[in-house]
Amino acid sequence: MKCFSVVKDMQNFAEFMKKKNCVIGLVPTMGALHEGHLALMRTAKAACDIVIASVFVNPTQFGPNEDYDAYPRRFEEDCKKLESVGVDAVFHPEPAEMYPNGYCTYVQVEGDITHCLCGAQRPVHFRGVATVVTKLIHITLADEAFFGQKDAQQVVIIRRFVQDLNIPVHINMVPIVREKSGLARSSRNAYLSPSEKKTALILSQSLKKAQLAYALGERDVEILKKTVIDSLHTEKMAVIDYVELFSFPALAPIHTVRETSLLAIAVKIGETRLIDNVILGEGIK
Amino acid sequence: MKCFSVVKDMQNFAEFMKKKNCVIGLVPTMGALHEGHLALMRTAKAACDIVIASVFVNPTQFGPNEDYDAYPRRFEEDCKKLESVGVDAVFHPEPAEMYPNGYCTYVQVEGDITHCLCGAQRPVHFRGVATVVTKLIHITLADEAFFGQKDAQQVVIIRRFVQDLNIPVHINMVPIVREKSGLARSSRNAYLSPSEKKTALILSQSLKKAQLAYALGERDVEILKKTVIDSLHTEKMAVIDYVELFSFPALAPIHTVRETSLLAIAVKIGETRLIDNVILGEGIK
Repeated sequence: MKCFSVVKDMQNFAEFMKKKNCVIGLVPTMGALHEGHLALMRTAKAACDIVIASVFVNPTQFGPNEDYDAYPRRFEEDCKKLESVGVDAVFHPEPAEMYPNGYCTYVQVEGDITHCLCGAQRPVHFRGVATVVTKLIHITLADEAFFGQKDAQQVVIIRRFVQDLNIPVHINMVPIVREKSGLARSSRNAYLSPSEKKTALILSQSLKKAQLAYALGERDVEILKKTVIDSLHTEKMAVIDYVELFSFPALAPIHTVRETSLLAIAVKIGETRLIDNVILGEGIK
Repeated sequence: MKCFSVVKDMQNFAEFMKKKNCVIGLVPTMGALHEGHLALMRTAKAACDIVIASVFVNPTQFGPNEDYDAYPRRFEEDCKKLESVGVDAVFHPEPAEMYPNGYCTYVQVEGDITHCLCGAQRPVHFRGVATVVTKLIHITLADEAFFGQKDAQQVVIIRRFVQDLNIPVHINMVPIVREKSGLARSSRNAYLSPSEKKTALILSQSLKKAQLAYALGERDVEILKKTVIDSLHTEKMAVIDYVELFSFPALAPIHTVRETSLLAIAVKIGETRLIDNVILGEGIK
């Protein structure tokens, strides 16, 4: 597996591969890789000739009081995992390589899709995500890029700016990977103490209850949300940030589930903010 | 010459040419083509295998009280000129093709380079320019893009975001083309009455006076600016918007010309706002 830390080197490699007519897949990550990431890599490997993973804890998507410094960094371990699934190259730049002195350009996605859900509590987050993903696509000349459904709002926003800016790349969304217990895989799970990890099971359990209610015919958004909220309230250590049900991918407010919709939650367990979601009515037209 | 009005068709053509290893040149214009534009086309032809010109009066770079509706549109005439210099394809989309319903992404270049000079009076202008140029580069898969020095600040901003976002394109700046009288070619010259056109000569004349002073050894920024201002004041119909002298390409304030610098002016002649500039000390290191 090749390893690049300089933008120009990474871009030259990608250009070389492109000239050979290789289909290039990109899997952007912030490292601390888990099974969810590896599922992205495997999906990319199946779809592309060359897979480039990026490992970069992107400072511009963290707010001033968020966990940028604390975010887990374990690059050597990550490289072993990437090699084990056949990733061809890893891009691992320093922050100053991505944002040198004088840097001043941001990709800004305006409108409701960035202000709802995680955007409400994290005002600069999606600007940082849109900016770094734009950079990574240009640096790797990716034809296909792969993102996890766990960050469903992120996928919606990335698809939006890719379409708006006519970036010649296809955005793929890969299903959430869960532990046996149901807990969605996340690098931030590493912050949880054993007892907090137990408490965190309430996220997926509460979503499952709403999924069951939906399967039994419930379509009222307030009732479906209340099912989740009541379930989360059974865990005193779980502090709700939001429980929302929006149309998907438009992320528009709805009263009744009549189209494909996203039921998404953010919950604080101790100091750790976790998110999870399910898509309801997939395939409704 | 091929003519495209649909993004996907333009992108498919570009992709086809790219697969043949053609070097693609892009010359973005708002139409109403003049000799200045044709110089860009000829430079592009000399440097690239395929030249794509875009003709699009971009609504997002006009402020609410600017001349978007009045801006001259003469596409058929433009096409003849483009064919005469051997342009291979023209991209001429409708506004709704570039900014369809739900469009919400902007490329924002922050910092002094967008707030000084034309950015002071035209707050959304460069956001619109950065956004549409990003789109056009993606739509045409351009390897080289060509812009006129007359919009020198625009070139600085485009080079900035291209570098910041790692867009794999090279930005070329082509010298100003002037009428015999010295008047810089501009589509907005069409707004001028014969007597205003005479008055407008004061722009290039005032810059020439400063250039002469510089050639004779003057390096003091205030004195060089005053040379221009005094000259402009000899024409009562000329209303100064700005006379500025900044380092180039940083566009940083300076007191003494010790490095390559941009002497730029914006002047209203009647209802028409004209700009012009000269670069001083080119090649100083």
